[in-house]
Parts: sequence; structure tokens; C-alpha cells
Amino acid sequence: MRALVFKHSFRVRWVDTDVAGVMHYSNFLRYFEACEEEFYRSLGIPLNEVLEKYGIMLPRIEVHCVYKTPCRFDDAIDVLLSVRERAEKTITYEFQIIRQRDGRLAAEGSLKCISVNQQWKVVPLPAEFVDLLRRNSGQ
Amino acid sequence: MRALVFKHSFRVRWVDTDVAGVMHYSNFLRYFEACEEEFYRSLGIPLNEVLEKYGIMLPRIEVHCVYKTPCRFDDAIDVLLSVRERAEKTITYEFQIIRQRDGRLAAEGSLKCISVNQQWKVVPLPAEFVDLLRRNSGQ
Amino acid sequence: MRALVFKHSFRVRWVDTDVAGVMHYSNFLRYFEACEEEFYRSLGIPLNEVLEKYGIMLPRIEVHCVYKTPCRFDDAIDVLLSVRERAEKTITYEFQIIRQRDGRLAAEGSLKCISVNQQWKVVPLPAEFVDLLRRNSGQ
Amino acid sequence: MRALVFKHSFRVRWVDTDVAGVMHYSNFLRYFEACEEEFYRSLGIPLNEVLEKYGIMLPRIEVHCVYKTPCRFDDAIDVLLSVRERAEKTITYEFQIIRQRDGRLAAEGSLKCISVNQQWKVVPLPAEFVDLLRRNSGQ
Repeated sequence: MRALVFKHSFRVRWVDTDVAGVMHYSNFLRYFEACEEEFYRSLGIPLNEVLEKYGIMLPRIEVHCVYKTPCRFDDAIDVLLSVRERAEKTITYEFQIIRQRDGRLAAEGSLKCISVNQQWKVVPLPAEFVDLLRRNSGQ
Repeated sequence: MRALVFKHSFRVRWVDTDVAGVMHYSNFLRYFEACEEEFYRSLGIPLNEVLEKYGIMLPRIEVHCVYKTPCRFDDAIDVLLSVRERAEKTITYEFQIIRQRDGRLAAEGSLKCISVNQQWKVVPLPAEFVDLLRRNSGQ
Repeated sequence: MRALVFKHSFRVRWVDTDVAGVMHYSNFLRYFEACEEEFYRSLGIPLNEVLEKYGIMLPRIEVHCVYKTPCRFDDAIDVLLSVRERAEKTITYEFQIIRQRDGRLAAEGSLKCISVNQQWKVVPLPAEFVDLLRRNSGQ
Repeated sequence: MRALVFKHSFRVRWVDTDVAGVMHYSNFLRYFEACEEEFYRSLGIPLNEVLEKYGIMLPRIEVHCVYKTPCRFDDAIDVLLSVRERAEKTITYEFQIIRQRDGRLAAEGSLKCISVNQQWKVVPLPAEFVDLLRRNSGQ
């Protein structure tokens, strides 16, 4: 089964660029995360309430990103998120960033997060949280 | 009496620059603060221990910065800090940023912080903390 | 005559916050600028085209910001921009940042920019550019 | 033959942290790059002069990072860089970030860059540049 895909659009800011005239490579990770934030808000549970409601945080344990096409100041970009894999204690998102002006793939990558409790001890993803994801992401 | 001046040197990073080829205006505030962090470490009390030791935090309530000369990638800069004013509940630092390659003033400004306790309630600067500053900054 | 006010809304991102749990003081300047970018786009002339169309850039020469109320992760904020003063070679914007959840003023400040040509020489604001601003900002 | 390793030390800044109290995951990439900048300076050729001297830029085409141990405000970190692979048109660096206070591995990863000329056309790494790297990195 294909995972469902969540999309959110952003605008590349002046501060995102560097002296080479393109978006700095670290800022793609910021847009990955901003899209993840909008994804959880779309589920009705902003990331800051995940701890409160489900007792977990989701620190990042691995990221991978391939850069395909530069993004420049004022480019509108679509960030696409899908849940690629959900294991007992981890979630792996997949991201694509598309330049709206020509539809080209700017970057694609993945981000793996692990479930920890308030004491930063690794714990299984709570069943209710898994249900929420399954209903909304096909995972 | 002239306030004593603390100095710390930094290097302008690629990520600090923007498409105009110069350091982004918001990043000067990051170097103000990085210098403040080194100042407190030089006093033997890193900023994160101020809460623990003196029971206060120092959120920023006002900043002012005048930009004089652009900084570019790889410029070495000296950041100079002095304590301009210490009131019952506030500290105001003064900063200058100097480009090493030509000694020109890149920027100068001030930063005012207020003393709050762990509940973010405004409280007087603790006497011990004031002593520490007075001994080390002429204020 | 009261200047007209341009408004754009943003969402405070996880990466905007710091260990104190609030938006870092330098990031308010990023939202000032992001609002300025949206203002120029609303005029039909994104900032990167100002150089191309009018032959000028607008580097920042002075910023002032007073912090009133902390912003936290996921806060929706309204940034309000007005053109406070337009002189022969400079523009000064005024900004307010409002927390949507309670309407409280989070920060207010000003940003002064100077007109330079491609060689970074100070030049008067081009008449056409001034007209554009006057028609759209009351200045 | 083992590649030689370049090391540079940094201090985690307040602005590097987020509301979870740890260094934001995107900022590890900034320290990878800051170490790369210091590496090239140690070779006598700051990154901004690579274009001027060798006619190339080195945009990033792929990054991978595994996060092992959180870094907190004021942590001193060692960033270790080695040149893992040098192909005709690409360089791949390997990084490790070590927390000084306990010697623990905070993160490790790799960064692949491609050689492009001033028109962003992919070109072979210039022979002189390759020599410089070989002499200084075992690659």
C-alpha cells in the first residue's frame, strides 16, 4: 500500500540563502521539520503536545538528504512528507522538496526519530499515537 | 570610571552570510550573545549555571544595533563587551564588533536584560551576582 | 496621516526556540524581514528584483527591538509593518509582533535601510521606487 | 592507508539549542561545515578563495548524519574531519562530533560535494586542488 502524503508550502527567505546565492544546505532540514510540524498540527496534535498527551518526545536519530537542484531567495517550495516506516520504537519520514516554478525536485531525504519518555529513556511508541499515525498516514 | 571591556574573537561562517554576500543582520545579535556567553564563562559562571547558582535568568528586553561596515565570509571579528549600566533589576551591555583585517567598526549596539526567577517573575539582581559583575566589569 | 499597515502571519518553529523554551531574540529580526519580504511581494516587486528593476539594494543600517512577551513553539504570530519614515536615501520600517492566542504585543521595533547601488555606493531612492512605496504605504 | 584527520573545537551556543534543551539537529550540519572551513584555512586556501584560485565551487550534493548523544548549551565539542573519498568530480568528507566532557560520540556523518565551475557546470576537480588535498589528507 502506498503511504499517504502530506504537503505544505513555504517561501525561501533571504536569511535562508548564503553567499553562493542559494539556500544553505542545513536549511533544508529546517523545512523538513517545519513540514513535520504542520503534519502533526493537521492531525490535531501539535508536536509540543505529544509529550503532554502521549508521554513521549521524538528526538531525531538519523537524517539523510540528497540535494538535486538549488533553491533561491523567494522560491516557493512544496515539502512533501510521508511516513516511510513505523517500527516499535521509531518513525521514519520521507521528504521531497519541489520548486514550484518548474516542478523540479530540489531535494529528497529521510528522517528517523525515536520514541523516548520524559527522562529520555527509549520506550515503545504508545498504541494511541500509533493509531493516530496509521489512520492518517497509511502507516 | 571607564567600564572594563571583555573581548572575544570569532570567524564569520559561510552560513552567516546571505545572497548579498555579507553577514545577515540578525547574525550580529548571535555574536553579541556568543560574546556574552564567553564573558560569563570568563567569570567562572556559564550562563546555564546562573539559574542554578543565583536563581535567576536574564531574558532580553531590548536590543539596538547600528551597522557600519559589512562582514564577509571568513572575516575574523573581535566582539567587545562592556557592562554599560547595572540597575536594580536590569543589566545593559554595550557591544562593538571590529573587523580584524582593517580594524574598522562593523557594528555597535546594546542589549538590555532583566532579572527573572524560575517562574519568569521580575526580581532584583541577587547581591552575590551583582558583586561578581562589579568585580569584573567595573559595574 | 497614519501610515497604512501591512500584515503577514507566521508560525513559530521548533528551531526558532532555545533552551529557555522561548523564541530566540535574534529570530524576531528574521520575522521582521520575512514580513518585509511579503510586503514587497504584495507590491509586485520581490526584494531580489529591486536591484534588477530599480538598480538599488537596501542594506540594513540600524535595528531596534523591544521584547514584551515571549513567543513559544507553535505560536501563531502576526507581524505588522508600516513605513515610518522615508528620507532621500533611507527607509525606516516599524514592526509589531502580536501573539494571536491572546492578542498580546510580543515585540515592537524599527529597521532602517539605506539605498545603495550595485557597487554599494549610497544613492538616492529612485523616484519610481518612492512612488511605489507612497502609493502603497502612505509614505 | 588511513586518512589523516583534521580536528577543530567549538562551543555549543545558546542559539544552537531548542526547547528540548539540546542542540537542534540541523545545527550539527553547521558544525560539520565550520570544521570544513577551518580545514581549508589550515591548508592555506579559505573556501572563498577556492573559486578564485582553482575556478571551482563545491556545492553539497548529499549529507548523512547519525545522532548518538545530545549536545547541550556550553558543551565543548571536537569536530573531526577526514576525506573519505575523492573521485574525479566529487569529494566525500567524514565527520565525527565528540563531546569533550565525557568523550562520547555525539554524532557522525558524511558530506559529499561536487566540483562545479562558476556557471554551476560539473567539472573535474582541478589537478592542483587534488594535489593540495592529497598532500594534506591522505586522499
